Amino acid sequence: MMSSKSGLKFIIVGGVAGGMSAATRARRLSESASITVFEKGPYVSYANCGIPYSLGEVIQKEESLILNTPKSFKDRYNLDVHIDSEVVKIDPQQKTVDVRVQGEKTIERYAWDKLVLSLGAEPFLPPIKGIDLPHVFTLQTIPDLRRIRCALQASTRVKHVAVIGGGFIGLEAAENIKGLGFEVSILEAAPQVFTLVDHDIAERIHTELRANGVSVHLRVNIKEIQPGHVMLGSGETVPADVVIAAVGVRPRTSLARDAGLKIGSSGAVSVDHFMRTSHPDIYAVGDMVETENRVLDRALPLALAGPAARQGRIAVDHALGILKEGYRGNVGTSICKVFGLAVASVGTSARVLQQMGKKPLWVTVYPPSHAGYYPGAQPLSLRVIFEPESGRLLGAQVVGKEGVDKQIDVLAMAMQTGMSISDLEHLELAYAPPYGSAKSPVNMAGFVGTNVLRGIVRIMHPEELVSSGFPLESIQLLDVRSPEEFGRGHIPGAVNISVNTLRERMDELDKNKYTVVYCGVGYRGYLAYRMLEQNGFEQVVNLDGGTSLFFSGGFDLNSRKTLQ
Amino acid sequence: MMSSKSGLKFIIVGGVAGGMSAATRARRLSESASITVFEKGPYVSYANCGIPYSLGEVIQKEESLILNTPKSFKDRYNLDVHIDSEVVKIDPQQKTVDVRVQGEKTIERYAWDKLVLSLGAEPFLPPIKGIDLPHVFTLQTIPDLRRIRCALQASTRVKHVAVIGGGFIGLEAAENIKGLGFEVSILEAAPQVFTLVDHDIAERIHTELRANGVSVHLRVNIKEIQPGHVMLGSGETVPADVVIAAVGVRPRTSLARDAGLKIGSSGAVSVDHFMRTSHPDIYAVGDMVETENRVLDRALPLALAGPAARQGRIAVDHALGILKEGYRGNVGTSICKVFGLAVASVGTSARVLQQMGKKPLWVTVYPPSHAGYYPGAQPLSLRVIFEPESGRLLGAQVVGKEGVDKQIDVLAMAMQTGMSISDLEHLELAYAPPYGSAKSPVNMAGFVGTNVLRGIVRIMHPEELVSSGFPLESIQLLDVRSPEEFGRGHIPGAVNISVNTLRERMDELDKNKYTVVYCGVGYRGYLAYRMLEQNGFEQVVNLDGGTSLFFSGGFDLNSRKTLQ
Repeated sequence: MMSSKSGLKFIIVGGVAGGMSAATRARRLSESASITVFEKGPYVSYANCGIPYSLGEVIQKEESLILNTPKSFKDRYNLDVHIDSEVVKIDPQQKTVDVRVQGEKTIERYAWDKLVLSLGAEPFLPPIKGIDLPHVFTLQTIPDLRRIRCALQASTRVKHVAVIGGGFIGLEAAENIKGLGFEVSILEAAPQVFTLVDHDIAERIHTELRANGVSVHLRVNIKEIQPGHVMLGSGETVPADVVIAAVGVRPRTSLARDAGLKIGSSGAVSVDHFMRTSHPDIYAVGDMVETENRVLDRALPLALAGPAARQGRIAVDHALGILKEGYRGNVGTSICKVFGLAVASVGTSARVLQQMGKKPLWVTVYPPSHAGYYPGAQPLSLRVIFEPESGRLLGAQVVGKEGVDKQIDVLAMAMQTGMSISDLEHLELAYAPPYGSAKSPVNMAGFVGTNVLRGIVRIMHPEELVSSGFPLESIQLLDVRSPEEFGRGHIPGAVNISVNTLRERMDELDKNKYTVVYCGVGYRGYLAYRMLEQNGFEQVVNLDGGTSLFFSGGFDLNSRKTLQ
Repeated sequence: MMSSKSGLKFIIVGGVAGGMSAATRARRLSESASITVFEKGPYVSYANCGIPYSLGEVIQKEESLILNTPKSFKDRYNLDVHIDSEVVKIDPQQKTVDVRVQGEKTIERYAWDKLVLSLGAEPFLPPIKGIDLPHVFTLQTIPDLRRIRCALQASTRVKHVAVIGGGFIGLEAAENIKGLGFEVSILEAAPQVFTLVDHDIAERIHTELRANGVSVHLRVNIKEIQPGHVMLGSGETVPADVVIAAVGVRPRTSLARDAGLKIGSSGAVSVDHFMRTSHPDIYAVGDMVETENRVLDRALPLALAGPAARQGRIAVDHALGILKEGYRGNVGTSICKVFGLAVASVGTSARVLQQMGKKPLWVTVYPPSHAGYYPGAQPLSLRVIFEPESGRLLGAQVVGKEGVDKQIDVLAMAMQTGMSISDLEHLELAYAPPYGSAKSPVNMAGFVGTNVLRGIVRIMHPEELVSSGFPLESIQLLDVRSPEEFGRGHIPGAVNISVNTLRERMDELDKNKYTVVYCGVGYRGYLAYRMLEQNGFEQVVNLDGGTSLFFSGGFDLNSRKTLQ
């Protein structure tokens, strides 16, 4: 059936998702290939995404992280897997690699026909004074996990843990270490954690972290790490018997550089659609390479397990000559659990797009996770970002307690297929009361966004309302919720006319004034917008996300005034 | 901004999803339109999908089903909603409708510029003797719900309930009535419940129903309903103090027929992409119309709330002249809860495609609902059906305890965008251990299906293995699981050589014999297939879904033998 290039010699450098997907795929396709894997560390196939959860004892047995061993790979796949074996040099002309086994001085040379590099990325250590102290750890590998576990258990005096960085690993580490009973602080240089989403969306994560007893320090500048604490530039001292440095990762490229392989503009290894480097028989996959970001139309590294596994497969399929079509680039679909919330993102945030000089549109909706009348529905915060003229999707963000993973997958599918905001109206998704709504959350975003795109409604984002340049004093701010809702809390300065009485009470308002309407999530505000706009109000906008976004997003009109 | 055709007179016949989406959209777009809704029944806006759950007291307050009233629609949307008001005649020339209010003799005539019909579908009552007895009910409306509730509570002697029909309503009714403590039987004429999926997938639902104490009668022919029981053609008597008839619905078309509107070949009202009937100012939406089924390329009715709501919106957008693009047809995405399981479907089943004379390919995989090493993962049964040459997706089916709704939505997105099985390999879906796997369930189906499409593996479905024409006696059946797994139960006649020892023990097998390999779900069988095929075995196939599908799917080699 399948013609396999018999006797081809594969060498794969680095295990885990990318490397072992390549190795096992190679064996499945070819019984006669020689397949050798060199892994620098002691484990060649483990669930690195599970490490924070093993630390937190959510995954109770550390063994469950270890998916395969050199022996199990030999037995099942006839692979020659060498652990503790570092490839120190590639000779692209002679097609060899030099390997040093840990603790040994001699170097062995191995020949290959096809070389697959899967070296991953290494935790980036920020140049902070004290970063090399023995109570500072990174959290990427099983040995890292064991070191941190020992440090936490070393003494009953270990009480405080500081996590530097509020990305995936930082957030997962904070939750899991807090779960063990330690006091946890997150120290983040940016104004927010999880920078893949916009600030006002991330604010729900800050609230969740604080509600669970994690101390969140944003915009921090770390001056020095000392035994027992971290000194901030502000003069503040954060207690820290153990410090986890989780500020991000950098592609491991030195071996590729030394071999003269092309490095891309992002600093990661450059590959074609078949994961081939600048050498026709050397492939590279996973966190060490740059691949096409389909939203930004440029090559960037992406440290995610799913793409790495697909790339390993593609490299081998191409090396064995069975592939017509290669890697399709990525849209950066990701999700992270933060205590009772999930936060997820695909594409690019409004903030990053604006920093790039673009003028994206976006809408924020608060649909229930399933039919509101069926028990247990939870509100989602769902944002979709799109291009002004075409409506082409540029990004999406979801936060909530239930069903976040489903919504982001639907949005990831929409982005991968190049959909526009108005395509989202038409999606036919599964509905039964326990699982969804007749109009799904993504449909809802499509309805609202398409109305914006077509000019059926104009919206204002809360950051515009609170920006110091906005003439707040000369506008009318209209709360169209019920008097009861208004009484429970409203945006300062707003007048209250319920949408149900607006048709009769419209003359209480000034048609010539710029009017900002809002409600709880945006829907009644939209109804009010339509009434006002058709009744001669010259400039009306509806506040995106209503009070739900305004109050959960950390906006404050008062602080604005004092800032002026 | 929006130019609204001022003063347009809308009449909408029938409320709920289609009608009220149309009415409220019309008001949002036009403050000056006159919008009148006539609803035959006492409720104009209620969650009909919630009715079985209200019966079962999962939804505790019946009021939560009632989403809006004529008064709330007047207050918020300035709509004139008339309940208990039946439209008895449409005059398409004069553009009027005749309306009779319940309990009154006079008929009022109302004029319209644009008429939107949203009459829904009515429960089909099979022509069974006794179907008109007072203890036989349909379950569609709030009055139906109240009647059944009264019948169940009428006497402590009411113990047994028979549900005729194993579709959505039948399954939801059975679960909910069982939950109230009654003995429930499902009587289904077909060989399976939930006929949207294939028989072997539905078998998991039968098992779940029985495990929860529901008596499942398949292939039944009902002879007569009598007080206290149902008599089957087989002579069996099923006790039934209350009978729910839930065999399906039929589009309500008589009003449209009488008005001379075109009826489609399916028997439902024919509409164009803008939901316009054969009369340019009469629209029809929801369960009463036929729309393009994108898999079968023909117009069919579809009784689902989501499409109805979208169609209502489209009709009005077109009537008001703001729509460039219409309804896109549907792929039939649906889901149903059955006790602890969810079962979901999109597109067309392998069975129906085969009945149509097509020769679809399909693969069945059993991935965990999220990373297997993270607590709580549940196995999913996931089937994807595709065209032999192009790989174009034709349908998908998912059953499981967790995340079924997510997988079917991803597959629904894939089908709506015309993807092929090999596109599924490339999907970039959200992964973190609590929510998914680096290779998602849909990716897995893509990998397996693409291997089948490209000839990297050949598979056999269990129905072929058990079919009486298959020469079972002259083949070798190879179980490649571990001896421990084999010992716990295997397919009769199989020999056991674990995949890990197959390379050494291959000479125990006959290369010239037709060889069927299997394992637990299909993956090790695939590895074994690749080894055997590359080592000169002439005809090898891997059993789709392994023992998971074979044993859960109701297959039995022994019964085959006695059948011969």
